[in-house]
Amino acid sequence: MRVLVVGANGQIGHQAVEKLKEKGHDPVAMVRKEEQVAQFKDKGIETVLGDLEKDFSHAFENVDAVVFAAGSGGSTGADKTIIIDQEGAIETVENAKEADVKHFVIVSSLGADAPKKAEQAKHYMYAKHRADQHLQASGLNYTIVRPGMLQNEAGTGKVKLFEGDPEVANVPREDVAAVLAHIVDKNQPANKIYNLIEGDTPIEETI
Amino acid sequence: MRVLVVGANGQIGHQAVEKLKEKGHDPVAMVRKEEQVAQFKDKGIETVLGDLEKDFSHAFENVDAVVFAAGSGGSTGADKTIIIDQEGAIETVENAKEADVKHFVIVSSLGADAPKKAEQAKHYMYAKHRADQHLQASGLNYTIVRPGMLQNEAGTGKVKLFEGDPEVANVPREDVAAVLAHIVDKNQPANKIYNLIEGDTPIEETI
Repeated sequence: MRVLVVGANGQIGHQAVEKLKEKGHDPVAMVRKEEQVAQFKDKGIETVLGDLEKDFSHAFENVDAVVFAAGSGGSTGADKTIIIDQEGAIETVENAKEADVKHFVIVSSLGADAPKKAEQAKHYMYAKHRADQHLQASGLNYTIVRPGMLQNEAGTGKVKLFEGDPEVANVPREDVAAVLAHIVDKNQPANKIYNLIEGDTPIEETI
Repeated sequence: MRVLVVGANGQIGHQAVEKLKEKGHDPVAMVRKEEQVAQFKDKGIETVLGDLEKDFSHAFENVDAVVFAAGSGGSTGADKTIIIDQEGAIETVENAKEADVKHFVIVSSLGADAPKKAEQAKHYMYAKHRADQHLQASGLNYTIVRPGMLQNEAGTGKVKLFEGDPEVANVPREDVAAVLAHIVDKNQPANKIYNLIEGDTPIEETI
């Protein structure tokens, strides 16, 4: 499948692109800057320049699935949380609808189900909540993945992926990327919301 | 009519409460803190304590109309723009639906129609945009008022209130409050979006 990865320059996005490639798909890495292209091109991975703050509808041509893994990151202000995490996601959903994309996989966050209860990063939880809600109401086939506290350590290849009430725990970014690639690869969008934390289940056996 | 004014401690909200009272309505000033009560109580105006970041559904009992005039203000961070201007408004809409309110009047902002084009305060325009959109989709009867650049000078009693493409101009907060009171008083919710700037039309003749 031809899979557009939005936010491919981020840690999760970058690894998701590579894992999709390993599984035999054709990832398209959407990056914002020309200097972010080479890291993918050198590995034979297609890229497209696109900026979530501008018009990026051109990136969706002939795309079968979308992985939204963009985030404004911890070093920017909350204004970017609205502009990127919320509105960038919403516009990605709109573009995906327009392009008749078959499966939209979004990286959300544990806690996005109940933003009002958040004890920290409440504004971020609201932004993720609104993005998820927009996707759910879009008519697209979707999978929402809500990882726990993201860690930079190497992945273990094992996780706990589950529906329902969240449990707070860590999860390596590499395992999140692997789960995204697995979900796209399985190609059975069931309009579900999954919590994702570290665990004992091999990623290949999660769904 | 019994009119809940959310954000009654703000400049526009406060003046809207007084103008509604002058017109013979029963405004209920929702304020966050006990020490904000006296300024209304001393004038015989009913108050209700309610915090947009907590549960404030109790404030909607026997309410005919709602004026949402709350805003996080210029001195707080963009995190509060999401939490108050966007989510506070959305939850006010939800509470109003639950309480079967007949008319919901919201103070939006010039520029909220096209947030992506905003040259400044883009995150704020997105927050207002999402709040307006939520109201429009709610099924409530509504009026959206999008004032231009708010000024603290005294009102003139005359404005330009119009639909369609916005024109950027100033408008005194007092005139915004007077327009809100007029719209509530007219009681003809037509699910319209108005731009509001300084002008030559007496407020009583606008609609």
